[in-house]
Amino acid sequence: MPTILGQNQYGKAENRVVKITRDGDTHHIKDLNVSVALSGDMDDVHYSGSNANVLPTDTTKNTVFAFAKEYGIESAEQFGIHLARHFVSSQEPIHRARIRIEEYAWERIATSDGNSRFIGADEVKHSFARKGQETRVSQITYDGENWEVISGLKDLTVMNSTNSEFWGYVKDKYTTLKEAYDRILATDVSARWRYNWTSDEQRMPNWEKSYEQARKHMLQAFAETYSLSLQQTLYQMGSRIINSRSEIDEIRFSLPNNHHFLVDLEPFGLKNDNEVYFAADRPYGLIEATVLRDGVEPKIPVDMTNL
Amino acid sequence: MPTILGQNQYGKAENRVVKITRDGDTHHIKDLNVSVALSGDMDDVHYSGSNANVLPTDTTKNTVFAFAKEYGIESAEQFGIHLARHFVSSQEPIHRARIRIEEYAWERIATSDGNSRFIGADEVKHSFARKGQETRVSQITYDGENWEVISGLKDLTVMNSTNSEFWGYVKDKYTTLKEAYDRILATDVSARWRYNWTSDEQRMPNWEKSYEQARKHMLQAFAETYSLSLQQTLYQMGSRIINSRSEIDEIRFSLPNNHHFLVDLEPFGLKNDNEVYFAADRPYGLIEATVLRDGVEPKIPVDMTNL
Amino acid sequence: MPTILGQNQYGKAENRVVKITRDGDTHHIKDLNVSVALSGDMDDVHYSGSNANVLPTDTTKNTVFAFAKEYGIESAEQFGIHLARHFVSSQEPIHRARIRIEEYAWERIATSDGNSRFIGADEVKHSFARKGQETRVSQITYDGENWEVISGLKDLTVMNSTNSEFWGYVKDKYTTLKEAYDRILATDVSARWRYNWTSDEQRMPNWEKSYEQARKHMLQAFAETYSLSLQQTLYQMGSRIINSRSEIDEIRFSLPNNHHFLVDLEPFGLKNDNEVYFAADRPYGLIEATVLRDGVEPKIPVDMTNL
Amino acid sequence: MPTILGQNQYGKAENRVVKITRDGDTHHIKDLNVSVALSGDMDDVHYSGSNANVLPTDTTKNTVFAFAKEYGIESAEQFGIHLARHFVSSQEPIHRARIRIEEYAWERIATSDGNSRFIGADEVKHSFARKGQETRVSQITYDGENWEVISGLKDLTVMNSTNSEFWGYVKDKYTTLKEAYDRILATDVSARWRYNWTSDEQRMPNWEKSYEQARKHMLQAFAETYSLSLQQTLYQMGSRIINSRSEIDEIRFSLPNNHHFLVDLEPFGLKNDNEVYFAADRPYGLIEATVLRDGVEPKIPVDMTNL
Repeated sequence: MPTILGQNQYGKAENRVVKITRDGDTHHIKDLNVSVALSGDMDDVHYSGSNANVLPTDTTKNTVFAFAKEYGIESAEQFGIHLARHFVSSQEPIHRARIRIEEYAWERIATSDGNSRFIGADEVKHSFARKGQETRVSQITYDGENWEVISGLKDLTVMNSTNSEFWGYVKDKYTTLKEAYDRILATDVSARWRYNWTSDEQRMPNWEKSYEQARKHMLQAFAETYSLSLQQTLYQMGSRIINSRSEIDEIRFSLPNNHHFLVDLEPFGLKNDNEVYFAADRPYGLIEATVLRDGVEPKIPVDMTNL
Repeated sequence: MPTILGQNQYGKAENRVVKITRDGDTHHIKDLNVSVALSGDMDDVHYSGSNANVLPTDTTKNTVFAFAKEYGIESAEQFGIHLARHFVSSQEPIHRARIRIEEYAWERIATSDGNSRFIGADEVKHSFARKGQETRVSQITYDGENWEVISGLKDLTVMNSTNSEFWGYVKDKYTTLKEAYDRILATDVSARWRYNWTSDEQRMPNWEKSYEQARKHMLQAFAETYSLSLQQTLYQMGSRIINSRSEIDEIRFSLPNNHHFLVDLEPFGLKNDNEVYFAADRPYGLIEATVLRDGVEPKIPVDMTNL
Repeated sequence: MPTILGQNQYGKAENRVVKITRDGDTHHIKDLNVSVALSGDMDDVHYSGSNANVLPTDTTKNTVFAFAKEYGIESAEQFGIHLARHFVSSQEPIHRARIRIEEYAWERIATSDGNSRFIGADEVKHSFARKGQETRVSQITYDGENWEVISGLKDLTVMNSTNSEFWGYVKDKYTTLKEAYDRILATDVSARWRYNWTSDEQRMPNWEKSYEQARKHMLQAFAETYSLSLQQTLYQMGSRIINSRSEIDEIRFSLPNNHHFLVDLEPFGLKNDNEVYFAADRPYGLIEATVLRDGVEPKIPVDMTNL
Repeated sequence: MPTILGQNQYGKAENRVVKITRDGDTHHIKDLNVSVALSGDMDDVHYSGSNANVLPTDTTKNTVFAFAKEYGIESAEQFGIHLARHFVSSQEPIHRARIRIEEYAWERIATSDGNSRFIGADEVKHSFARKGQETRVSQITYDGENWEVISGLKDLTVMNSTNSEFWGYVKDKYTTLKEAYDRILATDVSARWRYNWTSDEQRMPNWEKSYEQARKHMLQAFAETYSLSLQQTLYQMGSRIINSRSEIDEIRFSLPNNHHFLVDLEPFGLKNDNEVYFAADRPYGLIEATVLRDGVEPKIPVDMTNL
């Protein structure tokens, strides 16, 4: 046979599961988008179409919903661990399971202020508005022995309206950019961090707390860094997390430089003293890098968009 | 000539203007997407291509950026009023100007907690994260005499995890739906409300406060209504605003019914006690209606998506 | 009651129905996205939540799929006519039905050339690739007596790489644009045309042929017009359709001016002889107008995006 | 230092360059979206913010537009090769350049039929409509010595309305799916193939012809395969390309299973004889695999979405 099969995986993608937990009148939401990818002894289904080793993608979907009931959803990571373990442990032909999860955050709608005179003074505990800020992401991979957990976030748009410069760069024959000594620095943060928890023998991190802390450190580093380049800011964001969170060994960023161009108002007899900007769409700078704990081997893929 | 020209308008759409105001070290952001549409004596440009009456769309773009400097951006509505007045007043062939604005909200990145030991105790006042929840919208129209201001929001996703029923409906030969006595009610609120301010003689509303209050009343009505239909909830949301805000006379809603289907877990020997839901994409119910102050003539277009 | 209900409508939106017709081994596809909006005696469901007059949106969905079997899908317009008639005729409280349809075109995958030596010489008649060009749209409205059919298309991206100028426009203090004597003219055509078929007594147009012809005339007018403004081109596109198709009385266009800016290559010692362009995203000019058969009353809404 | 820098790259993403070539009155278009990513001695800019080794992303943008003039755009691949060679050869600190290109196809608007009586009989040779079907993609990487060219396409939606089955699969306690003996098989093809051209010493492939041929073989394999699983179809599509095109050694597919569910019409007294389908959005099966020439080492990343 002149052609052969290489790496392959399959499963049901984007299972939108919402779990409501009722604690008396107080409800809690977990809102996830779960994608399952399984690998193993799958040569036959590719070569001949025999499905003898294939657990249907429809079954992987059912399992996601059933596990939301059986195990609850304590955190995206914990939920993914239950699922990955199940597929690898229960199906002999499946050697590896990768669970990817997006999580959407919700906040309570406040009702108990003085304005709620219309119906009653009682606070409503089952009403929510979707926060709409970043999407939390996680990827849990299990091969029957070792775990890999990579978590992070995407679409967190941030801006520093000052304390950013850009000068002293290489100039070649195609360079026309003017140096900037006070510019806006804005980006949509996409970050993935890898936990050093890899085995059931180790103590598991507190996934919810770890996420909140990593997010906070990253944002504070963004805000507090006086920036000479977006690369420098990126590195500060990453090293702040590594230095603050011992459970995290590696972090990868993909940061578009959301250009805000100072508008030239001189033709209209006006001076633009860093006040009026045009927010451009395309093209944009794109800065990507990994920050690692010293001595650690990098494992997060360089093209991580799919996570 | 067997064909004639009907209603027409033109201008530059989606001017992305960001205005930074510096109050010492404390910065403030206004982040708008401004679209200009002008109408008037425009027969010639359509019939013969003569641009003698045409102020270029590029000029309308320049005006948006120049006015951000000349007038500042106190509110989207006030900014749109400056622009609309300018086009109609300064260009004889232009008889009507319609300014549409989207506004994106930002919040400060907190830096002054105990964790910010890395750089200093000072709080950073120029760092922001985009809130990412609803988009605020406004449309300001001026014909040289009267104003029409329609404001609102879109993409505000909300959910009640209980206190919603649906039963007692018509059953025909195509009806298979089972009645529901405890369901999730979720929607992406798109709302437009019309102000009764129409003339420079009247006292102008406080646009920022009015927006915050209308949003709050609408959310509280959503949370506090025990719902027998999404239509009933819609009407409560609208009448709450009309009853609470005397400056608003009319409100139009477009509310998709974001179906959350209770997953049947019985095949797996599990009972789903209103816990595990599948969040569906398409199709979705779509409920649209106008709520009016009694005696007032409706003016918000029925298809308002473009606003 | 200080607030009252205004115009309202409801139904299931975006029912994605695919109909396969088998003519021996030769298959045919119709691929539609159907949205139902019903109006009538709906005060109670808004005021009190009583669903006694409400045919569930779920039932309107079932009807779409059942009718694809019962009537087939000869054309989007004919399918919408069946649906609209059914809802108004069969449900006393429903006084008006509006059916909106998007249609996606498919083409056959060619298999019978010499390269298909692998399997056999027979042409495959059940394999299709989605064309992916414009989306055809239609809106059918029925009130029990009269019909209104508005059809059209969206997202048809076209470009003239020459024969377009722009000069002789108004210059005010905010004007910086330079006149252009050979520019690219590009747009994403969004067009809606209204048929003068309004009654079952009239002979119904051939919807499929009318669409193909209107599209062809519009594209030819775009290609053949030497343009001094996008408004002029728009008018030519509209009047060509009105003059060529007696079944169409009115057409509305929404045409973004997809700016292609000539890149300044002089800093690199290069001359850009109308060769290299930057295709910009935002902002863009937006030109909208209606073209009418003389003597006819315009009925297509000015903001037609929702169609 | 407890943290270190790992893999990193930077450049200007999504440069939208349109090149018009005039051959008398006959014009030709190339419409590309070009993204540049450079790597090399970039430690300083991350650690200290020194830009001494940084060619600005703005300069990489200028280079894209200047090269469109200097070299023309013969093919996306050839254009990327010019760019990658330039960055690595001209800038000592830059050791690797990766150019990613999306290409959008256009077709001529036909004008010379009998209907074009309005203006003249001449065919217009400068008017185009965007085809809108698949997006062609390419990634060219150069490290100063070796080349890697990975090309392909995305968003090519295809469907077989018969000749697809799915049965004989594993059944566990979460399996509810019924076996299917005549189902719709539909997917959005995303494919990336790697050329075995790696050195300036080798004869370069004809990129345009190779793309057309690979696309054709892939589509024919999709159409002609009687499918027992989407995996089987995928493998046939890949091996057909490898067997037909000696310049291609490896191909990776990511194929969503675009579910078309047969609608149950029995409640309405109707029989659905494989005629009426509901086209679902989420969740969807996702099938991904690599097909290789025997003996070749796989190099296309498993998560290739970013290409």
